[in-house]
Amino acid sequence: MSVIAFVGLGSMGLPMATNLLLKGHEVRGVDLDKQSCAAFIQAGGSILASAAEATRDADMLIVMVVNAQQAEQILTQPDVLSGLKSTGIVCVMATCQPAAMRHLNTLVQSAGRRFIDAPVSGGVVGAESGTLTIMAATEQACFEEAAPVLKQMGERLFHVGEQPGQGAMVKAVNQLLCGVHIAVTAEAFSLAAKADINPELLLEIMSGSAASSWMLRDRGPRMLQDNPAVSSAVDIFVKDLDIVLSAGKDVKAALPLAAAAYQMFLTSSGRGDGRADDSQVIRSYQVLNGTSLTSQPTK
Amino acid sequence: MSVIAFVGLGSMGLPMATNLLLKGHEVRGVDLDKQSCAAFIQAGGSILASAAEATRDADMLIVMVVNAQQAEQILTQPDVLSGLKSTGIVCVMATCQPAAMRHLNTLVQSAGRRFIDAPVSGGVVGAESGTLTIMAATEQACFEEAAPVLKQMGERLFHVGEQPGQGAMVKAVNQLLCGVHIAVTAEAFSLAAKADINPELLLEIMSGSAASSWMLRDRGPRMLQDNPAVSSAVDIFVKDLDIVLSAGKDVKAALPLAAAAYQMFLTSSGRGDGRADDSQVIRSYQVLNGTSLTSQPTK
Repeated sequence: MSVIAFVGLGSMGLPMATNLLLKGHEVRGVDLDKQSCAAFIQAGGSILASAAEATRDADMLIVMVVNAQQAEQILTQPDVLSGLKSTGIVCVMATCQPAAMRHLNTLVQSAGRRFIDAPVSGGVVGAESGTLTIMAATEQACFEEAAPVLKQMGERLFHVGEQPGQGAMVKAVNQLLCGVHIAVTAEAFSLAAKADINPELLLEIMSGSAASSWMLRDRGPRMLQDNPAVSSAVDIFVKDLDIVLSAGKDVKAALPLAAAAYQMFLTSSGRGDGRADDSQVIRSYQVLNGTSLTSQPTK
Repeated sequence: MSVIAFVGLGSMGLPMATNLLLKGHEVRGVDLDKQSCAAFIQAGGSILASAAEATRDADMLIVMVVNAQQAEQILTQPDVLSGLKSTGIVCVMATCQPAAMRHLNTLVQSAGRRFIDAPVSGGVVGAESGTLTIMAATEQACFEEAAPVLKQMGERLFHVGEQPGQGAMVKAVNQLLCGVHIAVTAEAFSLAAKADINPELLLEIMSGSAASSWMLRDRGPRMLQDNPAVSSAVDIFVKDLDIVLSAGKDVKAALPLAAAAYQMFLTSSGRGDGRADDSQVIRSYQVLNGTSLTSQPTK
């Protein structure tokens, strides 16, 4: 069993850290938010006052914060990296740009520690059930050493490459597909609304045809609601598609579909819908094309 | 049992007409191609020399030709519509623009006959097994009358509206999703190739995540082959996405993702790949971004 410093106990981090706790590791939680800390103590975990205290003689530091900037802030605090055991591993699981992951790797290597770029997908549900998909990039030996711990957070663990940044790139590719699939589902509904096609019937037909996608089946029904519960917000895709396009810019790859989808999420956020469920990117199409789903029965 | 004139015995029409034959209908086939006629006779059908001969006192005329122009040529030949029983139904199942379907409906109504706009999806496999999805638009009474025959060609029969053109619109929406899903899968592979991500591993990860689509799972593996067998050609999506964009133009709906995807298929065709498998739209991304799938192992 390992001693693990876990920084970032948000909606994803808290259940991930709890799963490690339940497997018998010593998990030292760190978070600025008092409620998150209280919840982790409730689950049986311990909370330390700073990242430096948490990493002292620890085997592993897992960073599950909002973005690369926050991750860098943590890793550059005095004694955080040097406090880890000399064989220690730093695992950043936040969604970051590939270039940012390479920069974090350089920081960690400079301190003589090893780095894993390991973003996740699967959302809060996956974090709670331990069924996350984890896309890890690091040297083979380091991957093998960390794999048992990673597996306890995500049963779909993939070693996607040995170069830091490759994990972030696979996550970016994942988000590219997810974001375009959501936007194109909205585009399809908007065209159909122009021809008075019943959207529920359309959804039934498309869900069972070659036109189907995971996102169409998941977000499609929520597009037909005026104010669905927020599963994941529009602004998450504004952020993630921005990472996708930055990743593309970094390697100079044209991504015409991702670029177009980004515009639709961006303008949804610009109209004040950033905190709405991401299915509500359909509102961008509705204002653009003058369509409405609820007022268009088949006739 | 009905007397059915069936015009167009191509790769889709032949198995559809054969299924009707096997259910006990009198099916009168018409096609310019001698091999197709011979195959239908082999299956137990009869071939008539012209559409006018085939529709004489028939209950139904099914038109399964390549496009709306061919359908109009058939419906405007002397005695084709007037030859049908006065209660006769004309069912056009080709993929056409919604506006073209409305025009064909006008032609048929002028001759005192009823019209069904009923495109299909499901490909040759669906046509052979009788499991096509049929998207029918016509008045309720006419739909109910034709439904038993339509069901014998496609078990997923949907009444999508009472206005001719609505069937074609649902088919267009279907193709919008399919075309964008193929193109975005290629876009995803192209970005990943820039970061030396193993494409087989990427496909495995994406197929099981929220990034998945029917097209990703079906066309993705063929994108990793240099010259896959042709299941459906690039030029079919050049045609179908052109229909999608025309349908959008007709109702003045902006379709940014479909428009971008169309460009990638169009330029594939322009480089001479029109008859290649539609998965090879990935070559457009490869020339654009200088990527190659086969030369990029994970390292």
